[in-house]
Amino acid sequence: MILRNLIERKRDGGRLTESELRDIAMAAADGSVPDYQLAALLMAIFWRGLDGAETSALTASMLATGNRLQRPADAGPWIDKHSTGGVGDKTSLILAPLLAAVGVTVPMMSGRGLGHTGGTLDKLESIPGFRTDLTLARAEQQLAEIGCALIGQTAEIAPADRRLYALRDATATVECIPLIAASIMSKKLSEGLTGLVLDVKRGSGAFLPELDRGLELARTMIALGEAAGVPVVTLMTAMDRPLGDACGNALEVRECLDALRGRGPADLWTVTEALAIEMLQLARPKLSAAEARVILRDAIISGAALARFREIVAAQGGDVATIDDPDLLPRAPHSGEVPATRDGLVLALPPRAIGHAIIALGGGRTTTDDLVDPAVGIVFRVRVGDANAAGQSLATVHAADRDSLASTIARLQEIVAIGEGPAEPLPWVSHRVTVAGVETLAP
Amino acid sequence: MILRNLIERKRDGGRLTESELRDIAMAAADGSVPDYQLAALLMAIFWRGLDGAETSALTASMLATGNRLQRPADAGPWIDKHSTGGVGDKTSLILAPLLAAVGVTVPMMSGRGLGHTGGTLDKLESIPGFRTDLTLARAEQQLAEIGCALIGQTAEIAPADRRLYALRDATATVECIPLIAASIMSKKLSEGLTGLVLDVKRGSGAFLPELDRGLELARTMIALGEAAGVPVVTLMTAMDRPLGDACGNALEVRECLDALRGRGPADLWTVTEALAIEMLQLARPKLSAAEARVILRDAIISGAALARFREIVAAQGGDVATIDDPDLLPRAPHSGEVPATRDGLVLALPPRAIGHAIIALGGGRTTTDDLVDPAVGIVFRVRVGDANAAGQSLATVHAADRDSLASTIARLQEIVAIGEGPAEPLPWVSHRVTVAGVETLAP
Repeated sequence: MILRNLIERKRDGGRLTESELRDIAMAAADGSVPDYQLAALLMAIFWRGLDGAETSALTASMLATGNRLQRPADAGPWIDKHSTGGVGDKTSLILAPLLAAVGVTVPMMSGRGLGHTGGTLDKLESIPGFRTDLTLARAEQQLAEIGCALIGQTAEIAPADRRLYALRDATATVECIPLIAASIMSKKLSEGLTGLVLDVKRGSGAFLPELDRGLELARTMIALGEAAGVPVVTLMTAMDRPLGDACGNALEVRECLDALRGRGPADLWTVTEALAIEMLQLARPKLSAAEARVILRDAIISGAALARFREIVAAQGGDVATIDDPDLLPRAPHSGEVPATRDGLVLALPPRAIGHAIIALGGGRTTTDDLVDPAVGIVFRVRVGDANAAGQSLATVHAADRDSLASTIARLQEIVAIGEGPAEPLPWVSHRVTVAGVETLAP
Repeated sequence: MILRNLIERKRDGGRLTESELRDIAMAAADGSVPDYQLAALLMAIFWRGLDGAETSALTASMLATGNRLQRPADAGPWIDKHSTGGVGDKTSLILAPLLAAVGVTVPMMSGRGLGHTGGTLDKLESIPGFRTDLTLARAEQQLAEIGCALIGQTAEIAPADRRLYALRDATATVECIPLIAASIMSKKLSEGLTGLVLDVKRGSGAFLPELDRGLELARTMIALGEAAGVPVVTLMTAMDRPLGDACGNALEVRECLDALRGRGPADLWTVTEALAIEMLQLARPKLSAAEARVILRDAIISGAALARFREIVAAQGGDVATIDDPDLLPRAPHSGEVPATRDGLVLALPPRAIGHAIIALGGGRTTTDDLVDPAVGIVFRVRVGDANAAGQSLATVHAADRDSLASTIARLQEIVAIGEGPAEPLPWVSHRVTVAGVETLAP
């Protein structure tokens, strides 16, 4: 392979063959081509795109550069969920034990927070002792034993994707749908899944804010799943405001414990249940949505889902006492309320600004090297559309020191838009996309 | 400067400011940004282009990263010529001493051959002992003494351009007019010129074969000269066939010695004289073309141009005996004729194929690390449009061994197109481009 010639062909709008993409992925993984040629190729792909066959070949090639979880021949369904990320998006922590509790194996490989979006690994690691760096062998054992493992992407998984992703981040070539789709699916397909539910966020806090782009990503990933023999269902959900009340790692774990007890915020449950129904229907295609809903609610009411979460925490080294007493989770030394500065309707809780406020508190990352303070964050007291009087609390801020507490309170007073209305939040779950097409659930 | 953000802006079709381009050039020169970010930026520029102000700022910034020749305040005109390159293009070796002989200082910084095109430095170095690696201080001294120096681009000159050029070569981002223009002009402006003549080739063997693209490059470089206060005149010349008869380093030096004696091939003189007239008129704007022609012819007839070449060779360590006895130049041990395989008109002497035949003989480079055999090459016996009988010689091949001799003879029998005609070669000098516009000299 002469990479220069392949860059040139893509630059001029040509196609790369399956074997060329395989060579590129292998060379990216083994380091036999320089970063600068890969960077130029990525920009040429950003420009010219990849067609379906190219995207599929790249995905399969990146997957093939690494190891994967081995699903035993006699195993039942293995189903995962992937979200494009957002603020307060904590559904994974509820879905994993909930689905495991109803007999679906959930091999869940997650990421860390970056920029305004949080990450499942950071949330889990706010539980003292919780380890996410399991080997694949250990994860396989845990999946056999308790039906769920919540792990990070190890160096064994799709090393070509790791290198290409790091380069994309440094070279402004992230927001390219075929590259996004290939990156996500090369990791997800390494989990040995029999089905995958995608939560594609839309709205101002989403990675791809516009509905059209989100739908395009959904279709691309569904086609990649189809090519790999893995059914994929996508729900388009709202990220024009945080999901649930809590934003910040330990605060979100606490909210998930509430939800697993059936006491979480309604919006969080709406989205989580919609995703859970899709996961359960992928596992048991003969179930109706109504039947799936009953099974899932039973697992909450009976305490089976919470019990499964306890087993996961114990298996991964976490302190199970936190489950019964969430006050044992890391707590910030300072907290304070955010009084509304005027009467009116809450018109916007803009997720990007809120995510950056959490970074400023020390609870998020601007670079992958940043350390995260698990205790800090924000718990909202209002939702978009609520009427509010001047002086009423909009949110509680949890901070590591008085300065960041005061500055975050002032910042939130600016960020939270209050006015005459009407407030027009996006529907929480608006579209369902499958290989058959797009179904609009809410206008 | 956050280079990632600048890549993103250019990727989205935005502009880079003068200070951003200065930061980029400085970082490229001092190595403070990684190659992969520069590579992505170069591909984004290939895609989105640079406008006139950006190209001018990049040129000035790259120039400013290095040293430059210092033209003394009391010096007369300093004029150079730059060609976009081709096969058999040897005019620099004639122009430099010719113009110096008529009182124009010629600080000429040249390059090496790469791919199918030859390079002035390689040609000069076929003269035993000839050194092109002069320091800038030594070149300034020689310019003061004999009015001409023929040197390579030292590490002191535009280091940002050196790094960016190497990256462009590896990342398929060479054929981008603003980047080509900025690269050439950042080097040429380092010569301290008062005027520059560009020889932009067109036709199948040219770097940019299409007339339109060549004219666009000409206009871009003229604008860059204008912005730097250096008048630039461009001639568009033919590279649909080799210029002159000889192709190969020592063989071309020999042909130049003939030309300096007034006995070179007519086509070579046609192009060389046209360029020389422009150079002399840039130096002495009040001269008419006819007056300039007389002065230049006198310098040939009187032997002044050849004498100046002798001084240059002596000053740069070359063996001056080769000037009187060109048989002292490196000679290949084997030579043979290329008999025509049929009667007919010579329809094409395709330069790219001929250039690659010279590489196969060992006389050119596919990578910058290749060593060049100065002795090998091809001397054509026919020109496009000549009638030829089967068995007549088309060319003489000079080779290092019998195998490459035989294979090159066979290759040339395939390459040289002979048929019924009509042959339609491009006019040798077709357009003249100045800041005032394009003048068509031959249809």
